[in-house]
Amino acid sequence: MSQAMKLLVIGGVAAGASCAARARRLCETAEITVLERGPDVSFANCGLPYHVGGEIPTRDVLAVQTPTTLKGLLNLDVRTRCEAVRIDRAGKRVEVKNLVDGSSEWLSYDKLMLSPGASPIRPPIPGIDDQRIFTLRSLEDMDRVIAATEAGMRAVAIGAGFIGLEMAEQLHHKGLSVELVELQKQVLPQLDKKMTMLLESELRHHEIGVTLGDGIECFVPTPDALECHLKSGKVLKADFVVLSMGVKPDTQIARDAGLTLGPRGHVVVDHFQRTSDPDIYAAGDAVETEELVYGERMALPMGGPANRQGRVAADHMLRSGTAQPYPGSLGTAIVRVFDVAAGLTGWTEKRMRDANKPCASVIVNDHQHATYFPGAKPLTLKLVWDPRDGRVVGAQATGGEGVDKRLDVIAACIQGKATIDDLCHLELAYAPPFGSAKDIINLAGFAATNMRDGLFEQAGELPFGDAQIVDVRPKPVADAFPLTGSINIPFPTLRANLDKLDRSKPVITVCAFGKMSYFAARVLAQNGFQVKSFSGGIKGNIDPRSPAKLPTA
Amino acid sequence: MSQAMKLLVIGGVAAGASCAARARRLCETAEITVLERGPDVSFANCGLPYHVGGEIPTRDVLAVQTPTTLKGLLNLDVRTRCEAVRIDRAGKRVEVKNLVDGSSEWLSYDKLMLSPGASPIRPPIPGIDDQRIFTLRSLEDMDRVIAATEAGMRAVAIGAGFIGLEMAEQLHHKGLSVELVELQKQVLPQLDKKMTMLLESELRHHEIGVTLGDGIECFVPTPDALECHLKSGKVLKADFVVLSMGVKPDTQIARDAGLTLGPRGHVVVDHFQRTSDPDIYAAGDAVETEELVYGERMALPMGGPANRQGRVAADHMLRSGTAQPYPGSLGTAIVRVFDVAAGLTGWTEKRMRDANKPCASVIVNDHQHATYFPGAKPLTLKLVWDPRDGRVVGAQATGGEGVDKRLDVIAACIQGKATIDDLCHLELAYAPPFGSAKDIINLAGFAATNMRDGLFEQAGELPFGDAQIVDVRPKPVADAFPLTGSINIPFPTLRANLDKLDRSKPVITVCAFGKMSYFAARVLAQNGFQVKSFSGGIKGNIDPRSPAKLPTA
Repeated sequence: MSQAMKLLVIGGVAAGASCAARARRLCETAEITVLERGPDVSFANCGLPYHVGGEIPTRDVLAVQTPTTLKGLLNLDVRTRCEAVRIDRAGKRVEVKNLVDGSSEWLSYDKLMLSPGASPIRPPIPGIDDQRIFTLRSLEDMDRVIAATEAGMRAVAIGAGFIGLEMAEQLHHKGLSVELVELQKQVLPQLDKKMTMLLESELRHHEIGVTLGDGIECFVPTPDALECHLKSGKVLKADFVVLSMGVKPDTQIARDAGLTLGPRGHVVVDHFQRTSDPDIYAAGDAVETEELVYGERMALPMGGPANRQGRVAADHMLRSGTAQPYPGSLGTAIVRVFDVAAGLTGWTEKRMRDANKPCASVIVNDHQHATYFPGAKPLTLKLVWDPRDGRVVGAQATGGEGVDKRLDVIAACIQGKATIDDLCHLELAYAPPFGSAKDIINLAGFAATNMRDGLFEQAGELPFGDAQIVDVRPKPVADAFPLTGSINIPFPTLRANLDKLDRSKPVITVCAFGKMSYFAARVLAQNGFQVKSFSGGIKGNIDPRSPAKLPTA
Repeated sequence: MSQAMKLLVIGGVAAGASCAARARRLCETAEITVLERGPDVSFANCGLPYHVGGEIPTRDVLAVQTPTTLKGLLNLDVRTRCEAVRIDRAGKRVEVKNLVDGSSEWLSYDKLMLSPGASPIRPPIPGIDDQRIFTLRSLEDMDRVIAATEAGMRAVAIGAGFIGLEMAEQLHHKGLSVELVELQKQVLPQLDKKMTMLLESELRHHEIGVTLGDGIECFVPTPDALECHLKSGKVLKADFVVLSMGVKPDTQIARDAGLTLGPRGHVVVDHFQRTSDPDIYAAGDAVETEELVYGERMALPMGGPANRQGRVAADHMLRSGTAQPYPGSLGTAIVRVFDVAAGLTGWTEKRMRDANKPCASVIVNDHQHATYFPGAKPLTLKLVWDPRDGRVVGAQATGGEGVDKRLDVIAACIQGKATIDDLCHLELAYAPPFGSAKDIINLAGFAATNMRDGLFEQAGELPFGDAQIVDVRPKPVADAFPLTGSINIPFPTLRANLDKLDRSKPVITVCAFGKMSYFAARVLAQNGFQVKSFSGGIKGNIDPRSPAKLPTA
């Protein structure tokens, strides 16, 4: 590589900062310039909601680096408040506008890195330009939201995705009254609906108003509030509004330069983050890459992939012979909402069905560690696999603790092309404070392979038509939390009470967690009944806060 | 399968209970008999230390099942205090002795499951038969230790493996004065020594006496104590002693029956848990199976593998056509000691070297989640791989939180035959409360591939001979916690101070966590120095409780 190699990086947050840092590590002599439109570089954007809510008490921990520290650490020329406005690909130069004094100049490059990021979506709804409607993307945005929290007590959060949920939680943490509005009929629309019931319950438990399946019609300023008029006619009064309705890539400069873009405006890159111009790379929220399971196109505006993509780009620029490719994205993500968490990796059932892919799935319930050890908390895991080859394609988890661990393990499994058989025998760390002899991931593997092998069938959604519903929970539990339309035959008494059931009608077995109902389905199937088990049980299907206890077995 | 298939299970704890339960789920009509020498079946043996210490307050949660509950749930014939004394393989029957009334009978079988477990080792040391010397394997053992904790205040725990560490912690938790003795020169000899320094520090921090590299010469009763005389001459006074010196398989009955045993007396089984007799299966602590990475023979007395092996055996007995094999053992394990944890999966560097396998390894330090989020705790990860193909073969982790997660993810990676390149791009769940944009596992992958690609060399153990030691920590840190024999050049000032170093001598860069020293090594290497980085830094190599803060970058 030439001694005077010039690397120009447009955008200095996750992907851009990683690219510049890696490039410097690989090449002390390169001239590396980083342009950042905003006032801050390499800040911790994932931490913004937590400083709004005060859980991260000091602002300066979010401003990870400054141009000065980056000069010392990496010998970078970082220029904030400088916007790249045009790329001259033939001349290999970029026109840069100084947003402070309005001056312009051209900077030349040998390699150009595009990491401009994405902007929050602000749909053209009447009233959207009210000064009390915020988005949260930069430290400046954060400062404005904090000022609003100090001026008013009523917040409306629009959009219940990852950021929207974090905002709702943190605004409540700060002591505000919070209303959350989501267009889909569930919170966290990235997940399958059943797997979001615990989050929804947790929000309501903390007296956050949750309005689902409703959109914003308009914003109307009144003397005492900014009114959010919903499509349903419902009106929410706010002192301010935070929009978390997703992001769109900031790729106008790439479009103008004639680089290939995807259908939603993302820069298309290959596994080495190369755009359609061999001297221009791109990474982060602005790009579209492959997803890891089926190789389909995917844009994933997340910090982890952005950081790693930036590093791959630098590797390929500076040592293309040994650079290793970005393997594709999974879409692993997690959110904490008060005392529970939920997240996913890979494909959901919904996404599989929307894509017309054959799909099998199962929900299992257990705890994050041995139930006999103090502090055991319920945990629910949904596993999604491709029934054609048994390959695990996705998982979702929710519960009080250990959600991140299970998602991470299954993410690693998906990346390793594991099948449901492989999950049965994962040898995970077990001591009573940390796990179970059979971890919930093993249990998911057992349930999935049992389904594949015909050992049990799952019952789908309620209602069950004319099937006999057999509730096999202990009698005190069934009495306390009765399941309408069912007959209670506690599992240990089932074998002795088969004559209470009509062999001419299908049976659906139900319990709290889906374990005893599976045991019962095995007994009934082997006694000639046509039977399905309500997998996931009452907790996974009906009431995630059901106080029905897990029967021991 | 015949309607009257007879399954006889010898040993009713982890492997035996799992086998019986799975067999019942597969076959309602089988006659399943479980023989257990002790008074309890299917109890939670991993919970025993925690009831001794009182952290698990009630005893009955450990007695997971009884013969009566197992009759109801699984229609099993469970016979406690019944010992199998002889197998007549030709006649397919077992002689069973009733330990209560002394009577004997023969029970016939179609399939026999051997899951007798293992017994604690009690070496023939003078005085070993003193009534105040306990082992901990059964609920009865536990009751005896509890009685001892109520009678005396001075405990000596011998053996600092997983159980020994749990015992030491729990005896301290109960308020006793505890001395821990270990023959090896480190606690938790299963790990590489550096990865145990935090555990050792944590034990001493809690005023547990730790004596390493010393063995027991004899036990001597005196009027006021049971004295433990060590080989070094040291004498520890105890009111009672708990031995945790490992276990030996209870396989005399298998030996007498002529089944093939391994070199240390374990029953040799194949991937379907079959012994050398096709109608006899074995699983759990009594067997030797393959380990997963290199296919070598391995005995692993752990609850998780025992449970899953028992299930595999039942599958193969009852539906051999579709049964899936046990893939082999990894040896994943973890222990909590007060506020820290440590564990491993797969191969350690020590074990690789003892087996004369080519071995590469690196230690990386970070935190369990984003450092800017409150509650970040240091975490240290050691990665071990085979340099011939880059395959990950093992990992060890220690720290305050998130140890189990990293071990589990890497266990899944090893089972999926991941390489160090694959670790770089694991897409793990990231939100500030749960992880980092680049998880410590990604960092380990980065470090390992950087080493493979020649981007940096690791410095080994201190002392470093005539090398120039360059401490690149911030000056206040270096002043407060000086590193003898080093020159302090804080990393941001390094490029401007290259002339302070002698280019004719090798350089070793050092920092707190091994990150800045790597950065410094890159700068120096590109400036013509012969340089190595002290990977793992002061925390990973010298002082795990070093209060030197992680420099941000």
